[in-house]
Amino acid sequence: MAVITLLTDFGLQDGYPGVMKGVIWKIALQVQIADISHSIRPYDILQGAITLVRTAPYFPPGTIHVAVVDPGVGTNRRPIGLHLGEHYFIGPDNGLFTLVLEQAEYTGKTIQIVHLNNASFWLREVSNVFHGRDIFAPVAAHLAMGISLSTLGKCITDPVRLQIPKPIRTVDGWSGQVIHIDHFGNLSTNLNAEHLKGAEEVIIHLRDMKIEGLVSTFGDRPAGSLIALLDSSGSLAISVVNGSAEQLIGARIGDTVEISIKA
Amino acid sequence: MAVITLLTDFGLQDGYPGVMKGVIWKIALQVQIADISHSIRPYDILQGAITLVRTAPYFPPGTIHVAVVDPGVGTNRRPIGLHLGEHYFIGPDNGLFTLVLEQAEYTGKTIQIVHLNNASFWLREVSNVFHGRDIFAPVAAHLAMGISLSTLGKCITDPVRLQIPKPIRTVDGWSGQVIHIDHFGNLSTNLNAEHLKGAEEVIIHLRDMKIEGLVSTFGDRPAGSLIALLDSSGSLAISVVNGSAEQLIGARIGDTVEISIKA
Amino acid sequence: MAVITLLTDFGLQDGYPGVMKGVIWKIALQVQIADISHSIRPYDILQGAITLVRTAPYFPPGTIHVAVVDPGVGTNRRPIGLHLGEHYFIGPDNGLFTLVLEQAEYTGKTIQIVHLNNASFWLREVSNVFHGRDIFAPVAAHLAMGISLSTLGKCITDPVRLQIPKPIRTVDGWSGQVIHIDHFGNLSTNLNAEHLKGAEEVIIHLRDMKIEGLVSTFGDRPAGSLIALLDSSGSLAISVVNGSAEQLIGARIGDTVEISIKA
Repeated sequence: MAVITLLTDFGLQDGYPGVMKGVIWKIALQVQIADISHSIRPYDILQGAITLVRTAPYFPPGTIHVAVVDPGVGTNRRPIGLHLGEHYFIGPDNGLFTLVLEQAEYTGKTIQIVHLNNASFWLREVSNVFHGRDIFAPVAAHLAMGISLSTLGKCITDPVRLQIPKPIRTVDGWSGQVIHIDHFGNLSTNLNAEHLKGAEEVIIHLRDMKIEGLVSTFGDRPAGSLIALLDSSGSLAISVVNGSAEQLIGARIGDTVEISIKA
Repeated sequence: MAVITLLTDFGLQDGYPGVMKGVIWKIALQVQIADISHSIRPYDILQGAITLVRTAPYFPPGTIHVAVVDPGVGTNRRPIGLHLGEHYFIGPDNGLFTLVLEQAEYTGKTIQIVHLNNASFWLREVSNVFHGRDIFAPVAAHLAMGISLSTLGKCITDPVRLQIPKPIRTVDGWSGQVIHIDHFGNLSTNLNAEHLKGAEEVIIHLRDMKIEGLVSTFGDRPAGSLIALLDSSGSLAISVVNGSAEQLIGARIGDTVEISIKA
Repeated sequence: MAVITLLTDFGLQDGYPGVMKGVIWKIALQVQIADISHSIRPYDILQGAITLVRTAPYFPPGTIHVAVVDPGVGTNRRPIGLHLGEHYFIGPDNGLFTLVLEQAEYTGKTIQIVHLNNASFWLREVSNVFHGRDIFAPVAAHLAMGISLSTLGKCITDPVRLQIPKPIRTVDGWSGQVIHIDHFGNLSTNLNAEHLKGAEEVIIHLRDMKIEGLVSTFGDRPAGSLIALLDSSGSLAISVVNGSAEQLIGARIGDTVEISIKA
């Protein structure tokens, strides 16, 4: 029995994720299905890519991650399947898998990518607007049933990759960005422990706020305090204790975050 | 092992759907449970009926669909169970099953409907306000365990049916309505491919907007374009590419949609 | 095969609950997992405690309830596990289990509580900010696999308890509070059938509204009526038929609710 996960921008109102479960269980009734998120902002491929890379590694070996943030559904963008180390990924070839692919490359995992072009593993009728239901769910279910990725499509080496914003070196540190804001209003950045290595003192600037030093967790400061810390994905994050940094600062994704370091 | 689905207007905050899963697994621990939606607008039976008919067919044969949008809970409205072809439906007799019943009739499926009046398959204590937990969940679980529908209640032939708005013939086409607006702001209508049959040219009017012709999918036009297409349920829909037609037009459920056809 | 439930304030956007399922299934692939709620208001331990006590009893014997509303994560607040009668509870020692513990004491169930201090059953790397993933999920999974609570930690008898507001006797009845407002805008109080025992007539006061008598269910009055009734948890609740009492009255948690009784 395998695990299949679902990550989409479909929302929870209309039953789109539920339908995908119906299609999967019709083919592979034993699989466990976990929702990762269906609240990715509509069409926001980058948010999908970030959420996927932060969650996928915690699933068992053999897990099949179906991710569908797919503004190009029904056009000539390819449906693809990736085998990255111990995990599989199924979805549209639009950059959604950029970060899990980079992670696999960085850690030297085995990598196989196919263009899912074998329609005999899709639903018989394929709409132009809901490939999550008509292509990706049935393909994932067949994969869970033991069909090999190379049977489901032919190998490719040129998946679409997103341009992911990278931190830039400054005179006394790094200039990064807010790349994710979570449910609590925590501001996660593209900076991490690597950028802080060897630092004795750190000062963080975001909009007109200045934070001196990192704490190790929220409860280290009184409620309402603006703090910086390493979050659960290992990224530098700016938070408000028992509150929302997003609301306090009015921060947005893409905001510049600068760190000044004294070694 | 069977599949049970849940469709309600209970929301996700208070644990009402979770409790239904507890009740089901206490009786039938092996069943797979899929949430279809718990975000039907409170008391909106029509939205529930539409969401159910669009999602139920994708589930495996033998699936038991529990649907609870139930403003009359605890009054003399009947709890009912329906066997429609390969699927079962459990819930209140208030019209929620009108569309799946019409579909079964239209496609010539076998139909059996019972008034669920055998209290020995309910929870021992039945509240007046939460039959999803006290009646529908345990009945569905017993059905999954092999108890027959005719053991759970006595046959009826007069289920309540909703008045569903139907398109009206006009001089040069059809006058229909927006009947569903999804998470992306797509406006789905009660018009479909049948109403467009043989058309060479189609013009769609909605409020003060006019759309000429249908596209096959979103990516056929630039972001921001107002388009018409057949959606994933086969209905004529009005959409904005990578945006929300609901927001752009200020459309609402019940809005008139007129199509003019040149054959 | 056991059931594990999840109740958190993590929201559904970021994949935090999904990650917990991944961690659980990596250790115990057969368990069924039910979401109770991930929409507890951020940091609101009391709302978590109320939702937990209202839902947990409906799950099968042996169910393991993981509850994480945890503003003190990463500080010296203890991770704890409770065995209360037929159910287990896992989470932070901050009062979240006060009500299920009181219920177990009141009904004379066997009670065992441990400080979860055996790190060999946690993830190898433990962050300071996400113990739901790093401690509570793996501990629950090991419990489901048959590891005993006393192996997972050492016994304690002093769990943190919340101060829960209790009704106060008045000249002619009771003064209570709104303690929960649900998705439908129903106002649930800390008053219940016990406080109404022997009453011939009851008058309920909330803000400037007055309600005479209780009804047995919503449909007993026309749509829009303000009513009082016993809700699905047995509490006295104020509701609007097919509407929202929260919106009509502008009520809030903590509002005083007074009942005058004539015996």
